[in-house]
Amino acid sequence: MENLSNMMILFGGTGDLAKRKLFPALYNLLRGKALPDNFAIVAIGRREKNNQEYREFIYSFIEEELGINLDKKIWKELSSRIYYLPFSFEDDAGYERLKATLNTLENTYNTQGNRIFYLAVSPEYFGIIVNKIKYHNLIVGEGSWQRVVIEKPFGRDLKTAQRLNKEITSVFSEEDIFRIDHYLGKEMIQNIMVLRFTNTIFEPIWSSQFIDNIQISSSEQIGIETRGGYYEKAGALRDMVQNHMMQLLTLTAMEPPISLDDRSIGYEKLRVLRSLQEYTYEDIFNDIVRGQYDRGIIDGKEVNGYRQEEGVDPSSQTETFVAMKLAINNYRWAGVPFYIRTGKRMTQRSTEVIVEFKRPPEVLFFKEYKYLQPNILVIHIQPKEGVFLRFNAKRPGVQNFIMPVDMDYNRNCLIDGNCPDAYERLIFDIMRGDSTLFAHWDEVEYSWRIVDNISRAWSLHPKEVFKYKAGSMGPSAADELLARDNRKWWDV
Amino acid sequence: MENLSNMMILFGGTGDLAKRKLFPALYNLLRGKALPDNFAIVAIGRREKNNQEYREFIYSFIEEELGINLDKKIWKELSSRIYYLPFSFEDDAGYERLKATLNTLENTYNTQGNRIFYLAVSPEYFGIIVNKIKYHNLIVGEGSWQRVVIEKPFGRDLKTAQRLNKEITSVFSEEDIFRIDHYLGKEMIQNIMVLRFTNTIFEPIWSSQFIDNIQISSSEQIGIETRGGYYEKAGALRDMVQNHMMQLLTLTAMEPPISLDDRSIGYEKLRVLRSLQEYTYEDIFNDIVRGQYDRGIIDGKEVNGYRQEEGVDPSSQTETFVAMKLAINNYRWAGVPFYIRTGKRMTQRSTEVIVEFKRPPEVLFFKEYKYLQPNILVIHIQPKEGVFLRFNAKRPGVQNFIMPVDMDYNRNCLIDGNCPDAYERLIFDIMRGDSTLFAHWDEVEYSWRIVDNISRAWSLHPKEVFKYKAGSMGPSAADELLARDNRKWWDV
Repeated sequence: MENLSNMMILFGGTGDLAKRKLFPALYNLLRGKALPDNFAIVAIGRREKNNQEYREFIYSFIEEELGINLDKKIWKELSSRIYYLPFSFEDDAGYERLKATLNTLENTYNTQGNRIFYLAVSPEYFGIIVNKIKYHNLIVGEGSWQRVVIEKPFGRDLKTAQRLNKEITSVFSEEDIFRIDHYLGKEMIQNIMVLRFTNTIFEPIWSSQFIDNIQISSSEQIGIETRGGYYEKAGALRDMVQNHMMQLLTLTAMEPPISLDDRSIGYEKLRVLRSLQEYTYEDIFNDIVRGQYDRGIIDGKEVNGYRQEEGVDPSSQTETFVAMKLAINNYRWAGVPFYIRTGKRMTQRSTEVIVEFKRPPEVLFFKEYKYLQPNILVIHIQPKEGVFLRFNAKRPGVQNFIMPVDMDYNRNCLIDGNCPDAYERLIFDIMRGDSTLFAHWDEVEYSWRIVDNISRAWSLHPKEVFKYKAGSMGPSAADELLARDNRKWWDV
Repeated sequence: MENLSNMMILFGGTGDLAKRKLFPALYNLLRGKALPDNFAIVAIGRREKNNQEYREFIYSFIEEELGINLDKKIWKELSSRIYYLPFSFEDDAGYERLKATLNTLENTYNTQGNRIFYLAVSPEYFGIIVNKIKYHNLIVGEGSWQRVVIEKPFGRDLKTAQRLNKEITSVFSEEDIFRIDHYLGKEMIQNIMVLRFTNTIFEPIWSSQFIDNIQISSSEQIGIETRGGYYEKAGALRDMVQNHMMQLLTLTAMEPPISLDDRSIGYEKLRVLRSLQEYTYEDIFNDIVRGQYDRGIIDGKEVNGYRQEEGVDPSSQTETFVAMKLAINNYRWAGVPFYIRTGKRMTQRSTEVIVEFKRPPEVLFFKEYKYLQPNILVIHIQPKEGVFLRFNAKRPGVQNFIMPVDMDYNRNCLIDGNCPDAYERLIFDIMRGDSTLFAHWDEVEYSWRIVDNISRAWSLHPKEVFKYKAGSMGPSAADELLARDNRKWWDV
């Protein structure tokens, strides 16, 4: 059994992520008895606060801003383990104070020298902090373990990602690096593997022999909010496709791994990426549709177009929507198109994987009724979570009319009251040292290659970024992408 | 398009089936505009009534006994087409009067000489009536069609069934004989073929490669009621297995037919019966369990045991329950046991086909959790109608626990209000000349062969008929039949 005792050193302790996600997750883990007994946190931020002030700052944010009613006893237990050190991430003296603090607290909490460095900070600080950790010799001694957690984005392109990775790996080895893709912490994403590999009925039909196409769709209703500066440089391709969409694609398409350990799964995911047919420039203009939201109506309220958002160039060509067709050139998937679609300011918030099966052979009932709906399996990721199956049955009545009927398995978190946030699972896995639900370097590198190839083509040959109305499902060109193949985006 | 115009000659016009099933079905067909314009009925019974009295007799039975509120206009339309002739089925003069009546009415209603002879009478009259039809030349002339409908049971054993068939085929050709097995008129039984042959996802896994075993279960809560005399000679084997259970078995196991016509389907059903492994005497005692209900509790009320029922020998060895294991020795099913179970006075009324899939290979999650529930597909026939699927998913939470979850498609007749009784469909098909949902001679003959083989063994080597408590799911020997194979009856 892995020794879970550890000290978490949380850079970015006053930041949004820490307040909004990490502390609530730690609280829930403690409540669920999933935290080790020997555990403490040292949070680091620039603002001046003492331990007590910091604890109260976190407490009141969770209670007041998040509206979560904390159990006093559990919070007391957790907060007594929370410490705060104010210093700037470049400040050498700060790291020396951190070192001294760690030495003391590690004794108090008997954390056995194990350390988690959680970098909940802006990407420009990743390299700086990692170097300071090395320079001040905060790395752990023999017999203890250390892990570093890197929030997204991991680079802006292949080159910056490679540079960042080099900096980190000069201090930490690959198996100690946990690159967060919080999508992977979502229950139903973890469920994709469980569904595929614990059931006899799915795997035999999970191939080009029975599947016509697969659609991976992730739409948001929100716009870019206050992130105009970041988003202008990123766009949907970097913000969503490079990480979340590629992860969904690989989990859906990968071969059964040799075992469930992180390396074996990472290996299979990489194999999918490597099997992706490389886009030629021509493909990029034929098979990828870019969109940018224009003014429109969301929930009955008029909202700005992307170019009117704060921090956005009024003639911006940044895409807030991407639809693309991919081909996986391996034995299982040859001939089965994968369609990916993601965008902001769309009709609804919804992420799902839709498997459209091939039509049955044109005999028997098909012959009689000329048309039968295909079978559809949907894995709902968020906000709805569950599995949905559409198949054909006889319509009640004296005639043999066929109709599609639906079966649903809904995981309703509100009802079963046991739905961890993605971060609970991810923190739990970091402590256990299980990196299955994290992005490994090979995968990150390979997805950047794919994305760089696309954005290079876009910048060399600027082509139309289609406008779409806020509140719609993207530009009509995205529908034409499928219509061209006699297919359509399923809305189920 | 088939010429649907016809005159129905209904023998047994004052009997239970006519009052309870046939007239309500005709009424519903008329209401649903599924009856031809040129149509009339001549009912024949022994009781003296004139047309008007007979119409009122039917009307008040449906309204008062069945509690159905007849639409006045529709009933008037139907009843104006109902005629009655009182005579005994042996009475030659009666048939001559019938002939004269038919000649008149066929003119009035322009039924174009087409005749349906519906024998809703005790089996002992089947032969007599058919012979009289021939003798008095009631068979139709060229250019018209005729059909004869035979209610169950079609014989008591192979010999009597063959004799009966010979009598009928001396007057009617096989394609004009409609042997009723009202189970086949049930919506979900018709749905078995639709499910199997209009969906891409089921047929690929419908074989020994993916299926561990199939359970076909039909339980009743009622006992033998007033049918002691009949049941003593029949038993569950003849009453249920020979017809309903064998039909369910063949529809579940058959190969895709070449087309949807009755001959092609009948041919595939016969192939299943012919592929059944013949029981040796030893098999019969090992693989078939007989039971007889004893006193017990049904719905909180104490009920009699079978031997205490009216008309039953107090030392009767007649089985009211049968559980059996069958093997279909063909390429698709070799190695997959089919378990059949049917009985009276059981816990609940329920008929279903349960497909238990093989366990997934013992790798990945299986290896980690040591056990995974198999996938289960259930086709609910009655009283619940629908499809149910059980598969494995991840239990919400930070650990990877696996749990079986259920998906349901319920056809709820009360809600969609469009659920025809089996007889509506069957009468509709008789008029259309579609015998798909009827038992063909080959199938009847072959099932009698199987059943005769079993009952011969039972009578030559009398063995234990296990007692079971009314309100239970049969004798424990039926559970041992599966336990022996490391299986169990699914109760889903």
